[in-house]
Amino acid sequence: MVGVDFGTLSGRAVVVRVADGAELGSAVHEYAHGVIERALPGSEVRLGPDWALQPPQDWIDVLRLAVPQAVAAAGIAPEEVIGIGTDFTACTVLPATADGTPLCFETPSRPHAWPKLWKHHAAQPHADRINELAARRGETWLPRYGGKISSEWEFAKALQVLEEDPEVYARAERWIEAADWIVWQLAGVESRNICTAGYKGIFQDGTYPSADFLAELNPGFADFTSKLATGRVGERVAAGTGANHDAGPDAGPDAGHGAGHGADGGGEGAEGPGRVRLAALGASAGTLSARAAEWTGLPEGIAVAVGNVDAHVTAAAADAVRPGQMVAIMGTSTCHIMPSDRLAEVPGMCGVVQDGIVPGLWGYEAGQSAVGDIFAWFVDSFVPAAYTERAAEQGLSVHAYLTSLAEKQAVGEHGLVALDWFGGNRSVLVDHNLSGVIIGQTLATRPEDVYRTLIESTAYGARMIVETFEKSGVPVEEFVVAGGLLKNPFLMQVYADVLRRPLSVIGSDQGPALGSAIHAAVAAGAYTDIEAAAATMGKRTEAAYVPDAARADAYDRLYGEYRNLHDHFGDGKALHKLRAIRNEASA
Amino acid sequence: MVGVDFGTLSGRAVVVRVADGAELGSAVHEYAHGVIERALPGSEVRLGPDWALQPPQDWIDVLRLAVPQAVAAAGIAPEEVIGIGTDFTACTVLPATADGTPLCFETPSRPHAWPKLWKHHAAQPHADRINELAARRGETWLPRYGGKISSEWEFAKALQVLEEDPEVYARAERWIEAADWIVWQLAGVESRNICTAGYKGIFQDGTYPSADFLAELNPGFADFTSKLATGRVGERVAAGTGANHDAGPDAGPDAGHGAGHGADGGGEGAEGPGRVRLAALGASAGTLSARAAEWTGLPEGIAVAVGNVDAHVTAAAADAVRPGQMVAIMGTSTCHIMPSDRLAEVPGMCGVVQDGIVPGLWGYEAGQSAVGDIFAWFVDSFVPAAYTERAAEQGLSVHAYLTSLAEKQAVGEHGLVALDWFGGNRSVLVDHNLSGVIIGQTLATRPEDVYRTLIESTAYGARMIVETFEKSGVPVEEFVVAGGLLKNPFLMQVYADVLRRPLSVIGSDQGPALGSAIHAAVAAGAYTDIEAAAATMGKRTEAAYVPDAARADAYDRLYGEYRNLHDHFGDGKALHKLRAIRNEASA
Repeated sequence: MVGVDFGTLSGRAVVVRVADGAELGSAVHEYAHGVIERALPGSEVRLGPDWALQPPQDWIDVLRLAVPQAVAAAGIAPEEVIGIGTDFTACTVLPATADGTPLCFETPSRPHAWPKLWKHHAAQPHADRINELAARRGETWLPRYGGKISSEWEFAKALQVLEEDPEVYARAERWIEAADWIVWQLAGVESRNICTAGYKGIFQDGTYPSADFLAELNPGFADFTSKLATGRVGERVAAGTGANHDAGPDAGPDAGHGAGHGADGGGEGAEGPGRVRLAALGASAGTLSARAAEWTGLPEGIAVAVGNVDAHVTAAAADAVRPGQMVAIMGTSTCHIMPSDRLAEVPGMCGVVQDGIVPGLWGYEAGQSAVGDIFAWFVDSFVPAAYTERAAEQGLSVHAYLTSLAEKQAVGEHGLVALDWFGGNRSVLVDHNLSGVIIGQTLATRPEDVYRTLIESTAYGARMIVETFEKSGVPVEEFVVAGGLLKNPFLMQVYADVLRRPLSVIGSDQGPALGSAIHAAVAAGAYTDIEAAAATMGKRTEAAYVPDAARADAYDRLYGEYRNLHDHFGDGKALHKLRAIRNEASA
Repeated sequence: MVGVDFGTLSGRAVVVRVADGAELGSAVHEYAHGVIERALPGSEVRLGPDWALQPPQDWIDVLRLAVPQAVAAAGIAPEEVIGIGTDFTACTVLPATADGTPLCFETPSRPHAWPKLWKHHAAQPHADRINELAARRGETWLPRYGGKISSEWEFAKALQVLEEDPEVYARAERWIEAADWIVWQLAGVESRNICTAGYKGIFQDGTYPSADFLAELNPGFADFTSKLATGRVGERVAAGTGANHDAGPDAGPDAGHGAGHGADGGGEGAEGPGRVRLAALGASAGTLSARAAEWTGLPEGIAVAVGNVDAHVTAAAADAVRPGQMVAIMGTSTCHIMPSDRLAEVPGMCGVVQDGIVPGLWGYEAGQSAVGDIFAWFVDSFVPAAYTERAAEQGLSVHAYLTSLAEKQAVGEHGLVALDWFGGNRSVLVDHNLSGVIIGQTLATRPEDVYRTLIESTAYGARMIVETFEKSGVPVEEFVVAGGLLKNPFLMQVYADVLRRPLSVIGSDQGPALGSAIHAAVAAGAYTDIEAAAATMGKRTEAAYVPDAARADAYDRLYGEYRNLHDHFGDGKALHKLRAIRNEASA
């Protein structure tokens, strides 16, 4: 089984044994263009502030390079592979023609023709308008997103395209998540997964926002959903039963050359021809096309799982797909994923989607906009030479050196509290225009004090999220950590102490790719459902970190101060004004 | 004329021409022991947090070394010198016997026997009790100090000695400012200046706090003022009329060997024998003793001016001793000195003292606890190697390099505002337990952004002080800058823009020493009063920096945010709690 994880800067392929989840081999391909933020590649065309693009070819290169390398590293014959699954950053979304051709292949000099990476934040004004109008009209889907949709998502980004480059918008027969686009490239037929549709595409209770609503935003936006998948209540398909799109898995290799079905698509009605239906997670999107077999070196015709999101597949990798198992994928940012058998309106959550993590349960998502990014920013910009030199002398990274100093302190000894909003706040305030706050510095404050404070601030942010879920009637039974920050045990212990609960940890450092392989195993029919596959192939250590009562008590007091700051600055009155002044001054 | 400035880390002697204030030569002596903060010198005796001591011998060494060097550097014969004036940090205060012997000479192993430097802050609990009781009793002197006296001052420090080392307290026949002690060493007779008595010794309307008040603080404190000078309303002496102490200038050289008058002192009543009266600024404290002539190489018998405070003498050096001329001495901290013809209760001022700057006017003092200290702290602890390397490549100090980056920005472009309370807040909140706040940071925030923000925050703090004076009915006619921060023109321009007024600047980089020489010229009878001497010998450039209207408007918005933060955090609710948690955690 091959799982492929498309991250922000690179793609990783992992070969996983179906019987037990053993990771046999892996390979990484760094994207040639990384994140495009300043100007289009090989061009004078400058991008505005908060833009972030990616070229589709970089993703294809992961299939061409990383997949065969992973198979080679695993020491198996390609013929032993029975399926491939993928996951992607989201909402990373692109305009395409009805045959799946990205518009940036046709008009590479137009910025809006390019895929917008999840962290493209230039559609904030559009998100604001969507939120305002939805609140005013009392749209029933709005509370499913904690009361606000994000500027990162499909509708905000598409509205930006419509209003800033109407020609590109008109030409876009498809507005498709990269998660689904890459599966289209693999299977040769279009499919759309229910996860991104629900979390990023405002698909709720079997439908998208109404044409009436969209027209009120902008008359030209009324038929936007014709560029998406269709889907009706009750049409969700159980995992393991194969694809539910119009073409189906028997579309065969000939459909796999970028033509696919639905070449007549675009502009048709909600139930019109050429629009695929949403596919359940764990379902098959079809079989590997001849072209994709050539790219990957894998056998043509093996199962291709429907697309998924990097965070959401990780729940399977951690065998944490039961109600109340909150998986925190902690890296540059943190994403919280939790299945539950209850539907509730949790303030500031990113979204709740039926079948959004596993079929049959509500899937909750929450997030912290920046976590590891905060520590990296501090280390890059605010740690003096004396520290970097001492770290080098001791053979430590600057992070490890600062941690070694910080962990010697008693809780509260630095006298500081920070708000972890340096990258805005996703949950529970859903406000990208918030910014960081640090209070309590004196002339005796040292770098390790601030570093520890920043770590703690993100733990307070996590506690705020957990408490908000529980207050809303959605119990959090277990806190499971995955992601790169696992490598810092001190940080993990801070989280255990601040959260006042044991932390479970994932048993793989390739969580998303492993999760994708688990989904592929289900799509290939090796397991009946995701739960069963995860139970065998997923890996989790319970209570890997246990809170210390005295430290937890001390943190309670500091968390109280964090909450006070949260209340005071959360309305954005001060921070929005500073942001506005900044934007005017920079203009 | 010789002026000697006793600073925090060194003493500086300057030879000044009486006719025009020309600075002919100068010399600096760095104190051998600097500031004693951890343990007594050559001893295992550890000091508590927030302690700061200094040995008297380091001060004597300035007389022995710097004065003759300055005379030599000036290229004049010592016989041409007709007077010597001094100024000192304040409140730097010591316990002594009735003959002026510092108690630390007798019992060097007892920390409380040593001089407490101005920045000894360990008497904060004692200051708090004094303030509480004074507020409760409605003591009329309290509003003269902005509603709160400082932990740095004579009564708080003495109460700490009484309660922590009663034997040292009992043995102290004198509790004397270093400003007066050094003049005692020069003239051989005790004198006490009205400036430190008023600003640091709670001498108001001709009297100290009552024995009744002091007894309520601690019964053993009731007769504390017997260790100070006496003084009655109307007994202030006009400048230029010589000393008004019991011994007088004719005490002669024999009195100059550490015996002086009043060897029978200590414990007598408020008007008892052995207690000197307060002397006006610019008055003579006597003549140079044989011993001090030997130390300094100056002629025995020349005029010695009464003691003064470094900040207060600077007003004369800047020729800014008329009503409404606010002199800001900007260095590690900032002190604001302003004569006025009006008495008002200005919230948070450090003090208002009749004749406290020049005889005949009310003298106001306000202050910012940390200014240059904040920039130094940031540069030392939070600027990465890449910056220090680039600064070195360009041949710039890190301060200059950061300034070169910061000055390119438009006002508000960094999106930040800070509260400049990293060393507590003196004016207008009088609260050493406040601490710093920075808001608005994002992952794009760079060191130069924070550096500029810190500079601006101190300018906002200065504006807060100026506005508070004016709202209280004390007009500020001119803002005159002296001190080390003058060397940063960008910083000066920020102040001009934030304050929305032209800045005048002092014409000397040795302001206090020049001011002391001006006072010595008056004491020697070369001028009739300080105003006349300052007009000829002092140096000031008017409107050296002029505000830019557009920048000033932009700063108005940011200052509004600063005021909001000031209001929110000024009550200390959050910051005091963090400080308390810190102190408990560090204990």
